[in-house]
Amino acid sequence: MLPLLFLLLASPAAALVQDFCVADLKSSDTPAGYPCKSVTSVTVEDFAFAGLGAPGNTTNIIKAAVTPAFVGQFPGFNGLGLSMARLDLALGGVIPLHTHPAASEVLFVAQGTICAGFISSGANKVYLKSLNRGEIMVFPQGLLHFQFNSGKGPALGFVAFSSHNPGLQITDFALFANDLPSEVVEKVTFLDDAQVKKLKGVLGGSG
Amino acid sequence: MLPLLFLLLASPAAALVQDFCVADLKSSDTPAGYPCKSVTSVTVEDFAFAGLGAPGNTTNIIKAAVTPAFVGQFPGFNGLGLSMARLDLALGGVIPLHTHPAASEVLFVAQGTICAGFISSGANKVYLKSLNRGEIMVFPQGLLHFQFNSGKGPALGFVAFSSHNPGLQITDFALFANDLPSEVVEKVTFLDDAQVKKLKGVLGGSG
Amino acid sequence: MLPLLFLLLASPAAALVQDFCVADLKSSDTPAGYPCKSVTSVTVEDFAFAGLGAPGNTTNIIKAAVTPAFVGQFPGFNGLGLSMARLDLALGGVIPLHTHPAASEVLFVAQGTICAGFISSGANKVYLKSLNRGEIMVFPQGLLHFQFNSGKGPALGFVAFSSHNPGLQITDFALFANDLPSEVVEKVTFLDDAQVKKLKGVLGGSG
Amino acid sequence: MLPLLFLLLASPAAALVQDFCVADLKSSDTPAGYPCKSVTSVTVEDFAFAGLGAPGNTTNIIKAAVTPAFVGQFPGFNGLGLSMARLDLALGGVIPLHTHPAASEVLFVAQGTICAGFISSGANKVYLKSLNRGEIMVFPQGLLHFQFNSGKGPALGFVAFSSHNPGLQITDFALFANDLPSEVVEKVTFLDDAQVKKLKGVLGGSG
Amino acid sequence: MLPLLFLLLASPAAALVQDFCVADLKSSDTPAGYPCKSVTSVTVEDFAFAGLGAPGNTTNIIKAAVTPAFVGQFPGFNGLGLSMARLDLALGGVIPLHTHPAASEVLFVAQGTICAGFISSGANKVYLKSLNRGEIMVFPQGLLHFQFNSGKGPALGFVAFSSHNPGLQITDFALFANDLPSEVVEKVTFLDDAQVKKLKGVLGGSG
Amino acid sequence: MLPLLFLLLASPAAALVQDFCVADLKSSDTPAGYPCKSVTSVTVEDFAFAGLGAPGNTTNIIKAAVTPAFVGQFPGFNGLGLSMARLDLALGGVIPLHTHPAASEVLFVAQGTICAGFISSGANKVYLKSLNRGEIMVFPQGLLHFQFNSGKGPALGFVAFSSHNPGLQITDFALFANDLPSEVVEKVTFLDDAQVKKLKGVLGGSG
Repeated sequence: MLPLLFLLLASPAAALVQDFCVADLKSSDTPAGYPCKSVTSVTVEDFAFAGLGAPGNTTNIIKAAVTPAFVGQFPGFNGLGLSMARLDLALGGVIPLHTHPAASEVLFVAQGTICAGFISSGANKVYLKSLNRGEIMVFPQGLLHFQFNSGKGPALGFVAFSSHNPGLQITDFALFANDLPSEVVEKVTFLDDAQVKKLKGVLGGSG
Repeated sequence: MLPLLFLLLASPAAALVQDFCVADLKSSDTPAGYPCKSVTSVTVEDFAFAGLGAPGNTTNIIKAAVTPAFVGQFPGFNGLGLSMARLDLALGGVIPLHTHPAASEVLFVAQGTICAGFISSGANKVYLKSLNRGEIMVFPQGLLHFQFNSGKGPALGFVAFSSHNPGLQITDFALFANDLPSEVVEKVTFLDDAQVKKLKGVLGGSG
Repeated sequence: MLPLLFLLLASPAAALVQDFCVADLKSSDTPAGYPCKSVTSVTVEDFAFAGLGAPGNTTNIIKAAVTPAFVGQFPGFNGLGLSMARLDLALGGVIPLHTHPAASEVLFVAQGTICAGFISSGANKVYLKSLNRGEIMVFPQGLLHFQFNSGKGPALGFVAFSSHNPGLQITDFALFANDLPSEVVEKVTFLDDAQVKKLKGVLGGSG
Repeated sequence: MLPLLFLLLASPAAALVQDFCVADLKSSDTPAGYPCKSVTSVTVEDFAFAGLGAPGNTTNIIKAAVTPAFVGQFPGFNGLGLSMARLDLALGGVIPLHTHPAASEVLFVAQGTICAGFISSGANKVYLKSLNRGEIMVFPQGLLHFQFNSGKGPALGFVAFSSHNPGLQITDFALFANDLPSEVVEKVTFLDDAQVKKLKGVLGGSG
Repeated sequence: MLPLLFLLLASPAAALVQDFCVADLKSSDTPAGYPCKSVTSVTVEDFAFAGLGAPGNTTNIIKAAVTPAFVGQFPGFNGLGLSMARLDLALGGVIPLHTHPAASEVLFVAQGTICAGFISSGANKVYLKSLNRGEIMVFPQGLLHFQFNSGKGPALGFVAFSSHNPGLQITDFALFANDLPSEVVEKVTFLDDAQVKKLKGVLGGSG
Repeated sequence: MLPLLFLLLASPAAALVQDFCVADLKSSDTPAGYPCKSVTSVTVEDFAFAGLGAPGNTTNIIKAAVTPAFVGQFPGFNGLGLSMARLDLALGGVIPLHTHPAASEVLFVAQGTICAGFISSGANKVYLKSLNRGEIMVFPQGLLHFQFNSGKGPALGFVAFSSHNPGLQITDFALFANDLPSEVVEKVTFLDDAQVKKLKGVLGGSG
C-alpha cells in the first residue's frame, strides 16, 4: 500500500521541485540569483563549506584579511538571503571603511577585541563600540562602517549578511585603486591632489 | 559657509529619518516588524548585544541550550533581515528536530564536532554531515533540521538567520508540550498511543 | 491614423514584454521562479487547469488524497504568488501533520466537515477547529498543521497558497520514508526505537 | 527537569513573539499591513471565517454578488499574502470589468459554467475561456479581467488572491459612480457624452 | 605588497559578481527580470539612455506621445526597481485612462500645465489636480489614472516608475483594439452596442 | 437598485481600505514605512508636491543644492517605492561622492551638461559619462556615485529613487562632519592626519 500513498502525496514530478536553489555559477546570474543546479545532482556537500576554517593571510598593509563565503564561493547560499565572511585581524589590523550595497551585517567577535563603528546617513552620527569576545554588533544595510583590532593580540570575527551577494565596496579602493581621474576624485571628495596621488600610488590606481 | 551647506544637503527634517529601525518592543508588532524607537534616543548600545557570550545551561535532558538573539532579545535587528543564536552542546547534546518558519539558517561550528542534517520536502531526501570547527552549513527556509554533538567533548555553534524573527518550532514541543489531544496527535502522526502519552509525560503535555 | 497611435503607445518591442511569466519547466528554476515561456506561444490554456476537478484516490492508508496545482503541475502560476491543491478526505481520512516551508495556506471546505489545526512556534499553542461547508481557515507560513475528516461522510476541501511553489513537508515522511538512520531519528525526536522502526516499515524507510 | 528545558528553548519572552499577525483593525494601517492584535488575546476564531458560506444576494442589475474576505473582513489574513472572495452569479450574471491593483487572482468554479477573460497590457491580447465545475484560471496581477455566467443555471466561484488586501477597482464604478466630470471621462476614454451621462445615471455618478 | 592586499580583499572570483544586472534581452525573462549580461562586456553605455531626449510625435488622434524607457528599451534598469517615460502633450493632448499593473508612478511636469487624476478602488474617489511646471504627483500602483494638457501651449512631462517593467494597460485599447467580442465588451462594461462598435472602428478592433 | 449594487460590490468597510498609505509622520516609522493617515482625511494635495519647482540655493562651497522629495518632505510617497530630488548645479557645481543605502537612482538631465559616475564594488570599475539635456543614467543601489557640472553654464537634474526613503550618505560628511576621532578616520581610510584635520575644519567636525 505504500507506493500508492507515496504517489498520491508526493508525485514524482513534485519530488523534482526544489526547496532550495544551489547556484549553477556557470549560468548567467539574474536579479534574484543564479539558476539552480539540477536537484538530482545536489548533495550535502553543496550545503557545507570549509573555507572559513583557516585564517586569512594578514601579512599585508592592513594586517587583516577578509575571507568571503558569498554565493560566488559557496553556491549553497543562492536565494536564501544569507552569506558569511571571516575577518582575521592581526595586532593593529584594520578592515577599512566600506559598505555592503545589498545587505545588513552582523559581526560576532570570536577572539580578541574589535572596535567597530558605522555612521548614519541622515545625521552623520557615529555609532562606535569596542567589542569583546562573544559580543555581536549589527551594521544596517548600505551604511559606511569599519572594524579594527583594538586589543593586545590577534582578533578574529565572523560576519553574516542578509543577502547571498552582499557586495563589498571599500571606499579607498573605489577612489584610489582604479583609473578614476585624480581631478575627479578631488572634485567629489575635497581631498588634496597630493593626498589623492599618494593613495593612488599605494593602491595601484592611475589617472 | 558650512551651516548653509549642511542645511542644504541634510535638512533637520531629513536628519530625523532613520537608516535603521530599532524595535520599540512596547508597541504592537506589524507584519514587517516593530515600530521604530525614536532616533534621538538610539545609541550604539542598541546595535550591540552581549547575550551570546555566555554558555547556556546544558544540564537538562537534551544536554544542550539554545540562546536566541532574535528581535525580542536584540531589538537592533528589527527590519534588517538578520538574527542569531548560540548553541551549546554538552557531550551527547542534541538540538531536537525543528523548523524556522520564517528564515533560512547558517551554522558555524566554533568548537567540537556537530552532526547536522535537514530533510527536503519534495523527495524527503536527507542531507546529513558531520561538521568540524570552522565549517559552516546552511539549512534552507522552513525545512526540518537538527544538530547533535557527534564529538568527544563539548561543542559550540553559532547560527545566523535571514529574518529578525525566524521563529523556532520544535516538533516534539508542538506535539507533546501542549493540550493537543493524544487522539489527534496519533491520527496525524501514526504514532502509537503509548508513545504519545509517554512523551506528553516527559514534555508536560496534557490531553 | 490608427496604426500611428498604436505604434506610439505600444511599440512592437513593448508588446513582447510580458505581464506574466508562464513557466518554461524545461529550463532551470531560479530563486524567483522558472524562466518564462515565450509570450508568442502563450495561449489561454496556459492560464487554466482542469486537474483539480476530479477526486483523488482515497483508497490508501490515510483515506485521503492531496492533488496539487503547484507550478510544476500548472505553469501559469509561475511568479504570481499563488497555487492551489485539492483535498479529498474519505470517511476517517487524514492529511497528516505537515508544513509548507514557503507559503501560508487558506482552506475552503466544499463538502462535509473537516477538523483542522495548527500549532504556534513560540508558545506551542494549538489552534484547532471543526469547519463546516463554506468555512475557511488560514494556516500561517511554515507552521505545523493538519486536517482530518471529522464528519459522517466524505469531505472535500480546496486550499490556496501564497507562493507558486509552497512545498509540502509531511513530518512522517521526512522521518520515516527515507534512509535517515533510526538512531538519529530517535536522538532528535525522543521516539522509542520500536516506534521508529515500525513506522519506517509502514512508510518504506530504511536505516 | 522539564521546566528547565522549556525555559531554555522557549523563553517566556520568545513565547510572546508571533508567527502571525492578526490585524488590529482599530489601529492605523501601514504599508505592510495592520499592527498585530496582542498574541495573548488571539484564539482560533481569529483564523477562521464563515462569511463565504452563504450566497450573496444576486437580485441586482448585474445578477451577481461579490462577497469579500479581505483583511477588512477577515483580520487573520493580515500579512500572510492571501485573501479570498465568493462570486455568486445568477443566470446571466456578470462580474464587470475590473482589476485588483495589488494581487494576482485564481478562480475556482464550484458550480455551473463561468466564462472568464483577461487582457494583456503589452499586446492587448484577450485570454478568454469558458470554465466548468472544478476548473481553475489565474489572472495575473493588475490586469483587466471579468467573469460572467455562460451556463444555463446559477454559477458559483471562489477566488483567492496573493495579498491580504488585493483591492477591487471596477472600471465602470471608477468612471461613472463618482463626481469625475463627464467632460474628463469623455476626454480620457473617447466615449460619447450621451453614453457617459447614461451610465452616470445608472451608477449614481454626478458631474 | 599591493597585489596581495588586492587579492585578499577582492578575489578575482568576487570581482565577477555584479552589483547590477544589465538585461540580456535575448535570454528568456524570469519573474524577477532578465538574466544579466556578462559583467565583462558591460560598459557605461549600458547605464545611460538618450531616447527620452527627443519629443515624441504628437500628430495623432490623442495629440500626445508616450516614449517609454522600460527594461525593453533600456536594459540597464533590469532588476533595479526603476524605469521612466516621456510624455509629450500637444495643445489638447491626452494620455488616455490607463493603469500600470506592476508599479507606482510619479509625474514631473517639465513644461506647460497638465491635469492629472487617479481614482481609488475602495471608494471610487477621484483625486484630480492641475499641475504646473516643477510640480510632481504620485499615482499609487495599479490604479486607473490619466493626464491631459490643460494649458494653452504644449506640455511636457517625465514619469518614473517603481519597477523596471511597469506595464501599461490603456483601458480603451484593452476593450476596443483587439478581438474581444462586442457582446462581451457590452456585457462587462454596460456600454451600448453602437458605442462599442464605434470605438472598435476607431481603434482597429474586430468582433 | 443602485444602492444595493453598490453595497454588494463595495461595502462601506471595504471602502475604508486604502490603495495607498499617505504617511502620518507624527506616528513612529516602521521597517516598511510610516502608518497611514486616515483615508477619510486624505485629499489630492497629499499626492502632489510643489517643492521641486524652485531652484535650490547654490551659493555655497559645492556650488550645488540637493532638494529632496523623500517621504519626510512628501508623505504621499510612503510605501510606494518611489521618491525624487532636484539637483541644482551652478557653473562648477558638484554633488560630492555619496551613496543611497536603500535605493537605486535614475538621473534625468533637464538643463546643461552633467558628468556622472559610479564605481562597482567587485572590480572597483568606474562608469563615467557626460550627459546632455534629455539623457538619463542609472546608479545601482548602494554604490558610490557623484555628479558634477561639466558644462559652460548652470545645470539642472532631477533624480528618482526606488524607495520612499533612499537615504543619502555623503562620504565626506560621514568622515569629517561629526566627532569620529581623527585617529580612527586615518586608520580606516589611510588619509594623512593633516588632510583629515583640514577637512574636519571645513565641514565642522571635531575629534
